[in-house]
Amino acid sequence: MPELTNRRIVVAQTPAGVLAETHFRAEDAVAGEPGPGEVLVRAVLLSIDPANRAWLQGRTYRDQVRPGDVMAGLVLGEVVAEQDAGIPVGTYVTADGGWQQYAVLPAASVQPIEPAGDLAHHLGVLGPTGLTAYFGLFDVGRPQAGETVLVSAAAGATGSVVGQLARGHGCRVVGVTGSAAKNQVLVERLGFDAAVDHRSPTFAADLKTACPGGVDVYFDNVGGPALDAALRRMNTHGRVVCCGAVSQYDTDTPAPGPAGVPGVLVTKRLRMEGLLVFDYAPRFAEALTALAGRLRDGSLVELQDVVEGLDNAPRALMGLLAGENVGKRLVRVGPDRLTT
Amino acid sequence: MPELTNRRIVVAQTPAGVLAETHFRAEDAVAGEPGPGEVLVRAVLLSIDPANRAWLQGRTYRDQVRPGDVMAGLVLGEVVAEQDAGIPVGTYVTADGGWQQYAVLPAASVQPIEPAGDLAHHLGVLGPTGLTAYFGLFDVGRPQAGETVLVSAAAGATGSVVGQLARGHGCRVVGVTGSAAKNQVLVERLGFDAAVDHRSPTFAADLKTACPGGVDVYFDNVGGPALDAALRRMNTHGRVVCCGAVSQYDTDTPAPGPAGVPGVLVTKRLRMEGLLVFDYAPRFAEALTALAGRLRDGSLVELQDVVEGLDNAPRALMGLLAGENVGKRLVRVGPDRLTT
Repeated sequence: MPELTNRRIVVAQTPAGVLAETHFRAEDAVAGEPGPGEVLVRAVLLSIDPANRAWLQGRTYRDQVRPGDVMAGLVLGEVVAEQDAGIPVGTYVTADGGWQQYAVLPAASVQPIEPAGDLAHHLGVLGPTGLTAYFGLFDVGRPQAGETVLVSAAAGATGSVVGQLARGHGCRVVGVTGSAAKNQVLVERLGFDAAVDHRSPTFAADLKTACPGGVDVYFDNVGGPALDAALRRMNTHGRVVCCGAVSQYDTDTPAPGPAGVPGVLVTKRLRMEGLLVFDYAPRFAEALTALAGRLRDGSLVELQDVVEGLDNAPRALMGLLAGENVGKRLVRVGPDRLTT
Repeated sequence: MPELTNRRIVVAQTPAGVLAETHFRAEDAVAGEPGPGEVLVRAVLLSIDPANRAWLQGRTYRDQVRPGDVMAGLVLGEVVAEQDAGIPVGTYVTADGGWQQYAVLPAASVQPIEPAGDLAHHLGVLGPTGLTAYFGLFDVGRPQAGETVLVSAAAGATGSVVGQLARGHGCRVVGVTGSAAKNQVLVERLGFDAAVDHRSPTFAADLKTACPGGVDVYFDNVGGPALDAALRRMNTHGRVVCCGAVSQYDTDTPAPGPAGVPGVLVTKRLRMEGLLVFDYAPRFAEALTALAGRLRDGSLVELQDVVEGLDNAPRALMGLLAGENVGKRLVRVGPDRLTT
């Protein structure tokens, strides 16, 4: 095999406070070669996710990503070499490949996919994002038709799917975002019933107006002040799906916990429950069938926000944390297929 | 009917900060007479509960108890007069009768009981306290044999029952209280596996030592710093039963919400869920049968803490909020049976 240059983004230092380009460095290395049972994956697209930021800060559900490590991230790529791996060259896979052009990975750690339609869907609606929306909404939130579902980071990858699934389930759907432009997309393109801007000085009143019957399910991607505000609007026996806390990731001075907890949980008999999608792996096939069906029939639209070029991955993550993306943020690392 | 003097404790002012005797006044009035469909109940015992304090501060699951109102509270008493109420004179009932010797109440609002053994059990293990412990532990906490159950205010009326029920279920049981003397009672009399003092400077380390395998179910009666500490010890897929927040009731400067929420709920996939026992009314009979059986066979012991005399009710509540009680705190208002 000819020697391949592997462009990669390495963590330069653990961020304190807001993430900056200086926390990363780009470098060229030589791509490895697969040993027995391994594959060499060429990255096509990187998934940029709020969790990336949390991984830099400390141990979460995975070990901290530390200075000197290739930045971690979910990759969609193509197997370009393998050794007794049982995965043919040319197979598309998703994998924990990191921010680099080429990754050598154990075959057991990659998930082969059968590309149908837009490849990017496999990092979005048909990837962890869509699966999180599906299981978080239906298994944790358990909405009934006619109930009100509130979702934060509603123009983001997970939130935009949650809202559309809830609407399809017969719920009133209200989104929270950080801009009027995003809110317009939610209402006009995705069929949300209402959307409110958490940066508005009238946010609390706007939320009350948008949820005249209160909130039955709050799908929380952000934590912080939006969670506080939502808790005040919850109906008796409401459910809060704790999916993430993006408002708290990009800072070294996290907000205090939600005011009134646990008292309000008692008085209103609320349930707050966290999820990580990996726990639902035995049921991924069920969810993927449902989600793919909705993409095909047009009842589910994926908003995509693609940034070009691996070297722009740090800026893509910084922008995501600042709320600049609409829909699923991806970085294109290379072409879908290499022309040879 | 001869005119009866009705001693009663009235709210004098809404407390700001720590509850004091000056927030109440005692006065003598004339007992009312039951109208059609009403009963006159003579109070025997008052239940003193942390929730009493919360009711004074604002609307909870009931309207605020305001200056000029007879202080609200659960009463065990005897029907001494009635008019077309369908409840014979001499029947024992529990009722929302308030801090007074005599209360006129709609028959539909009182719960007749069949006294068996200690009358006081009907305000404790066989009353809302025991029912809260039963449904909170088994329906919300859902412990499995072998798991570790942590309970705060563990020497209190609810906590002491929770711990014994969990132990009977095959769990490791650890209590949190505010004194070494209480902890000795838990371990030596009630069979707790361990107990820790939240006032100790080594509380966090003590908690870790007492729960070497982490915590699977935390039954939280207190909120505040003990909840923060428990969240740090929770195992993946742990459950926090939110039953009350007594650390937050007797103050006008409540603590901030629990640090790390919602992030820790996501990372560890925790469930925090509040309960009010009234929601389980359709299943009270099932629970009362189980609880009465355990009292009879000695596997469940009720700790009681009885304060004599209605005029001492304010001090009894103040002391409860300061953590001076061991077990179910009651105020004796009158004899079980009047000698005539």
